Amino acid sequence: MSDYDQSPNYQRGLNLVKEMLGDRFLAGLTASAESGAFAADCASIAIESAFGAVWSRPGLARRDRSLVTLGILIASGKSAELRNHVRAGLNNGLGVEELQEVMIQAFPYCGFPCVAEAIEATIAVLRERGLIDDSTQSAKERGLL
Amino acid sequence: MSDYDQSPNYQRGLNLVKEMLGDRFLAGLTASAESGAFAADCASIAIESAFGAVWSRPGLARRDRSLVTLGILIASGKSAELRNHVRAGLNNGLGVEELQEVMIQAFPYCGFPCVAEAIEATIAVLRERGLIDDSTQSAKERGLL
Amino acid sequence: MSDYDQSPNYQRGLNLVKEMLGDRFLAGLTASAESGAFAADCASIAIESAFGAVWSRPGLARRDRSLVTLGILIASGKSAELRNHVRAGLNNGLGVEELQEVMIQAFPYCGFPCVAEAIEATIAVLRERGLIDDSTQSAKERGLL
Amino acid sequence: MSDYDQSPNYQRGLNLVKEMLGDRFLAGLTASAESGAFAADCASIAIESAFGAVWSRPGLARRDRSLVTLGILIASGKSAELRNHVRAGLNNGLGVEELQEVMIQAFPYCGFPCVAEAIEATIAVLRERGLIDDSTQSAKERGLL
Amino acid sequence: MSDYDQSPNYQRGLNLVKEMLGDRFLAGLTASAESGAFAADCASIAIESAFGAVWSRPGLARRDRSLVTLGILIASGKSAELRNHVRAGLNNGLGVEELQEVMIQAFPYCGFPCVAEAIEATIAVLRERGLIDDSTQSAKERGLL
Amino acid sequence: MSDYDQSPNYQRGLNLVKEMLGDRFLAGLTASAESGAFAADCASIAIESAFGAVWSRPGLARRDRSLVTLGILIASGKSAELRNHVRAGLNNGLGVEELQEVMIQAFPYCGFPCVAEAIEATIAVLRERGLIDDSTQSAKERGLL
Repeated sequence: MSDYDQSPNYQRGLNLVKEMLGDRFLAGLTASAESGAFAADCASIAIESAFGAVWSRPGLARRDRSLVTLGILIASGKSAELRNHVRAGLNNGLGVEELQEVMIQAFPYCGFPCVAEAIEATIAVLRERGLIDDSTQSAKERGLL
Repeated sequence: MSDYDQSPNYQRGLNLVKEMLGDRFLAGLTASAESGAFAADCASIAIESAFGAVWSRPGLARRDRSLVTLGILIASGKSAELRNHVRAGLNNGLGVEELQEVMIQAFPYCGFPCVAEAIEATIAVLRERGLIDDSTQSAKERGLL
Repeated sequence: MSDYDQSPNYQRGLNLVKEMLGDRFLAGLTASAESGAFAADCASIAIESAFGAVWSRPGLARRDRSLVTLGILIASGKSAELRNHVRAGLNNGLGVEELQEVMIQAFPYCGFPCVAEAIEATIAVLRERGLIDDSTQSAKERGLL
Repeated sequence: MSDYDQSPNYQRGLNLVKEMLGDRFLAGLTASAESGAFAADCASIAIESAFGAVWSRPGLARRDRSLVTLGILIASGKSAELRNHVRAGLNNGLGVEELQEVMIQAFPYCGFPCVAEAIEATIAVLRERGLIDDSTQSAKERGLL
Repeated sequence: MSDYDQSPNYQRGLNLVKEMLGDRFLAGLTASAESGAFAADCASIAIESAFGAVWSRPGLARRDRSLVTLGILIASGKSAELRNHVRAGLNNGLGVEELQEVMIQAFPYCGFPCVAEAIEATIAVLRERGLIDDSTQSAKERGLL
Repeated sequence: MSDYDQSPNYQRGLNLVKEMLGDRFLAGLTASAESGAFAADCASIAIESAFGAVWSRPGLARRDRSLVTLGILIASGKSAELRNHVRAGLNNGLGVEELQEVMIQAFPYCGFPCVAEAIEATIAVLRERGLIDDSTQSAKERGLL
């Protein structure tokens, strides 16, 4: 058992995960944190230090924190984590057109290959949420990637 | 001589550079673009394609574009370009506390070394603008980096 | 509808995509650009600014531009885009042995993990083009990766 | 046929691959090196220069070299090669709890997205070796990634 | 004033910084954390979450954590932070020859440019500690970099 | 003393360094390799494995290998090593305009920040060689970076 769950940041983190990523994600993350399995403490550290200590800080709106985080994840090519933060960004108030512009904004600073990968990840989330037409094809689906 | 300067994006780009980075930066960038010297077209391409074609798009506020760009530059460790975009971010409406939070937001996604470098660059700009106390010492100045 | 397609660079870009990546890729890219779907303008920007404004420049042969681009994509680990540029490189005059040497040249500058991923992507394209023996196994297929 | 296999480093490399990665991996690597197929010399170079010239050096224990290599591969996001080096690390004396701590150690220096990907790769190897409970779920399997 | 300094991890972190990086570094870091200046909380977060929550964990020796951290910092090209962790590594029991081998070990996984930068940073620390001959010239000092 | 210098690749490497980087660089590199100082073997490994085993291979012209290497170094932001390879590229037959186009070619694949840093490094070498006008100012010298 972990001793992370006593800290105020851990509680703040749980609330924030729930609001930003929903009940199902929260359930998965706490189940992972409490599993005692390999690297389970990583989930606890994520809850406490990423969500509790950082995301919960005042001084910058959550929607703004989402924009910074999306920029980071596009640049570093982390598609799996990016999908989570497209979901969080939608919950934090970003619209579909804004997400499109986030992707395009990255082009002069990261180049096309990063942007193209990020668009694939974003389309997957938008489709899952029913926010784009089913007929929308990604570059990969068109054989361009 | 370049044929970039005829395009509507080039004109849009010039306006945007002026508004976001000021007259002196604009003068330097156009002087570079018109110099005909080595890689001068890079300045033209920056004006036309980064500022004219991307930054000028509707659909995402400039302040939001700044947040995405700051995230990208922190993650990719590009301190020189980051200084320009801290300046642009201030002109686009970001406050000092918000910039601080942008840096801290990056920690769980990039790790400390990227954040520490980004803070050095940001402090340099804030000092240049008189936005932080002269006595503020960066980690580097304290011998921590 | 996009206003990209009026520019001379857009037309130059279309020609270049056709020559370097073929009719089918061109059809997919223009369909994407004209779809009006999420991030469709990214395809337009690729046509206009990557292919039209950069690849179409004089001063460096296309085969040379392919070599630079392959180096970039190997180093940045962008396998999907690398497959497109192995195809383009073949159309721009690079032979199979030369592609092999491009991969090996990257080793001292990027290390093995980047090179190994790049070889996987390259073998996939060479097989698709019938340029290597069907019995050639990649490191992944041999269980080495 | 390659002329790599005459060098003393090549022989040292073969021994080291056998000890660190086992007979099956060695068989695959030498088959690849001797295949004469596309980029086969890469396997020879790996044997001679990575395993023969570097890993075989005195001055740092193999278990220590594994720790450095794991740090590098986590930071650079090379999951396929990381799996090989989790296997090598186990053979070089690292235990399961130590591997867990290697992953957690990376968090403040690389950020969560790198760590999360590395944990996925490590769990795959630990499962393959029967070193963790079959019921251990990775973040990906829990829908968190 | 920060509320970080109440947590048990903060106290653990302070002890660990003192042992690994010495009194002077600790004084600089706590002065930074307590300064209330721009991004001062970053120092608090470093103490609490990097040193207190991660470095203080059982399950992996400090010398081993140093090896992982050195690997990460070589790969990500963070020379300033690397100097701190060469110092920490020496305090955690790594010898000069071992540090040399850490650098050489990185070559097949990161390539020469990363290794060359890391050696420059390491030589600077070794010289500062009087651990190498004053006449030792780095590649940069020889005009090779 | 090193046992690297007996191998045929070491001799090939020495010849190649001389041809590509000149007598002075060769003298510095061999002095470093023979110094027995910290990490001196890195110089030997560079001579033997980068220059001897890789650059000396048939199958791809040296000028082509320079183009690949420049692409890699631009993408990975290694300015110090890039200066060496701009020098090598000039000796391998690349002209000033071609080098300019190498930089511009990188823009759509790496983004501006990488390109801007690479141009600074290239201008430094071109100036040192007397290949550009003394009045050419880099972006940094114009206060743009």
